[in-house]
Amino acid sequence: MNKRIFTNLDVASLAAGSVAYGLINNAAIAVEGEKILWVGPADEVPQDLQSAEHSDLGGRLVTPALIDCHTHIVAGGNRAEEFEMRLNGASYEEVARAGGGINSTVRATRAADQDALMQQTLPRLDALIAEGVSSVEVKSGYGLEQDTELRMLRAARALETLRPVRIKATYLGAHAVPPEYADRADDYIDEVVIPTLRAAHAERLVDAVDGFCEGIAFQPEQIARVFDVAKELGLPVKLHAEQLSNLGGAKLAASYGAMSADHIEYLDEDGVIAMAQAGTTAVILPGAFYTLRETQRPPIYQLRKHKVPMALATDCNPGSSPLTSLLLTMNMGCTLFRMTPEEALTGVTRHAAQALGLSDAGVIAPGKRADLAVWDVKHPAELSYRIGFNPLHQRIFGGQL
Amino acid sequence: MNKRIFTNLDVASLAAGSVAYGLINNAAIAVEGEKILWVGPADEVPQDLQSAEHSDLGGRLVTPALIDCHTHIVAGGNRAEEFEMRLNGASYEEVARAGGGINSTVRATRAADQDALMQQTLPRLDALIAEGVSSVEVKSGYGLEQDTELRMLRAARALETLRPVRIKATYLGAHAVPPEYADRADDYIDEVVIPTLRAAHAERLVDAVDGFCEGIAFQPEQIARVFDVAKELGLPVKLHAEQLSNLGGAKLAASYGAMSADHIEYLDEDGVIAMAQAGTTAVILPGAFYTLRETQRPPIYQLRKHKVPMALATDCNPGSSPLTSLLLTMNMGCTLFRMTPEEALTGVTRHAAQALGLSDAGVIAPGKRADLAVWDVKHPAELSYRIGFNPLHQRIFGGQL
Ligand SMILES: [Zn+2]
Ligand SMILES: [Zn+2]
Repeated sequence: MNKRIFTNLDVASLAAGSVAYGLINNAAIAVEGEKILWVGPADEVPQDLQSAEHSDLGGRLVTPALIDCHTHIVAGGNRAEEFEMRLNGASYEEVARAGGGINSTVRATRAADQDALMQQTLPRLDALIAEGVSSVEVKSGYGLEQDTELRMLRAARALETLRPVRIKATYLGAHAVPPEYADRADDYIDEVVIPTLRAAHAERLVDAVDGFCEGIAFQPEQIARVFDVAKELGLPVKLHAEQLSNLGGAKLAASYGAMSADHIEYLDEDGVIAMAQAGTTAVILPGAFYTLRETQRPPIYQLRKHKVPMALATDCNPGSSPLTSLLLTMNMGCTLFRMTPEEALTGVTRHAAQALGLSDAGVIAPGKRADLAVWDVKHPAELSYRIGFNPLHQRIFGGQL
Repeated sequence: MNKRIFTNLDVASLAAGSVAYGLINNAAIAVEGEKILWVGPADEVPQDLQSAEHSDLGGRLVTPALIDCHTHIVAGGNRAEEFEMRLNGASYEEVARAGGGINSTVRATRAADQDALMQQTLPRLDALIAEGVSSVEVKSGYGLEQDTELRMLRAARALETLRPVRIKATYLGAHAVPPEYADRADDYIDEVVIPTLRAAHAERLVDAVDGFCEGIAFQPEQIARVFDVAKELGLPVKLHAEQLSNLGGAKLAASYGAMSADHIEYLDEDGVIAMAQAGTTAVILPGAFYTLRETQRPPIYQLRKHKVPMALATDCNPGSSPLTSLLLTMNMGCTLFRMTPEEALTGVTRHAAQALGLSDAGVIAPGKRADLAVWDVKHPAELSYRIGFNPLHQRIFGGQL
């Protein structure tokens, strides 16, 4: 396979270790096909790589390509009208009576065929890619009936055929109770969520199983029934937990060895310890906190103290986080939650990969995929510092410019 | 001159009137040279325009091009290092001792020649232009001595030679007391601010005169001395007022017939009434509020009640608002300050023009400049609703695509 060596660059490898960001000034990166072959100081390039094709990166900073590990990016319609109604003083009830809220997204998603869903998703996906994103998690959860849930997952998978990007598809049947099952959440779990999970798995559409554990959604014992089936099918789980209250969702998720617990604004230290012991990643979602004007911040100090890995994601969705910038998410993680710029960058690379079980991504190291982002900045802290600015020079996906 | 007619579009003209956004579905816009000739429903296009060259805009939404009416976009260096220090727990004193704060920007700006200042500014300016911005206000205020203040203003003016954009240059000598005048603010006003204002005006570098009226900057009586000279020179004034406390700055500014009072988080109803009577525009700056994690919101309700026009701007600056997205500013105005999407869009078009005294911009109407933004959205509320997303299809500047 073709070997290529990138030179004249600084690298923030994000490899775990003692140097902040895994920073090496005056570095070089060698790739072969889709993989990274070597990374290190420019003056230590091995002899046998020196004849490889050279690409001069003009002194720029190279990081791993970014990873958005929590999105609802496949969805029908938008909720701008509801956004405007609310700002003009309409109450939640008035918005609901006018057909707003998650049900409006469910209606629009059910009405869209796979191609329409994909076409509506592409501008959002392109916005992420334009910021150096290589891998995106995509959840179902706006169908809330079998056909549409499967269609959402197929649309998610098929995005890989339209754009150079890796998709991880997450089944989120337990996202909300649909209107036709009002007050019958248990029936919805048994009659729709679980059968659809089995059908989606049979079609190999599911990389992980998620749920929304909250007073306004599902109770821990209902989530547990879904997770039991996931376990039976050998699928990893994750959970929307402790966003608006503490129902012990993160602890439940940890007891299933969850890959991640997401939101977790109301998580207590017990839950943090359970996550630490289970190796569950905390996925921090400042976009929803910002949009909903929440005041309870996730327990960053406790997560640090117990060494729970923290990822950051857009939570891109039409209702509580119509956010399509992972760079802005990094700034929000720092500004709103006082994460450090290094935690923010680790959160959209190494820890985001960990949250998705992507063992070949998120760091620049031999054997990993050559998914790289080349930035017009001097120092990696600049990626979190600026607001609404995209300094991406170039994205490298599987070794390809 | 060449006439051209844009067809197959919806227009949000932002002309004052009873229809929200000045919205006309199925509209057409005719331009001649740099000017708008006609705008209205497609089926009412006058006979004599029907033979003009047609451009089909594919059903998209057209608004006035956006206007950023408050920026410090010309500046040397960046403050990412300080941002990171603070998030790693450094106190304000430690940051100051390490050379941080506004003085670090002053040092970097003094060290940069005009070309370097312009080169450092261009990526920020390009980020604004990429979102459909046609006119940008640029302040001096990081020189704090004559040569650098003049150089900043020259750099601001000269940006028009590098990009298709209109610049309004504002002299902000009274931005901060430089280290060499520590504890001698009055001497700084007399020996530097006022002589430099006269020199800058003699060079025709000044479109307006600004100051920072705050406990950490200048007292109202010091600002008044500068404004007296502005008045003598026939220059309009504006003021950074009531950002962190209420010193009566907006009232002072109104008494000079100021074009705008900016920030105004701590403004009281008395001040609002003074602004209303003077016809002073309120420039709302959510980027600084967000970055500084302030909690006191500007008195939007009072401003509405007394019909003070509200503009929105980025306040783009390396310290308290490294923000280069006017669309994100619109979302912040809605999300953080509960402005409506219509107020937000008016705030970056008609009212922003008013804040800058740009009588030929900010609305789509016959005789105005043909500075237009063409968007891939259905409804103007979408421009405020999304976060970190840029749906600009095309910018038209002075009638040119
Ligand atoms: Zn979510
Ligand atoms: Zn300012």
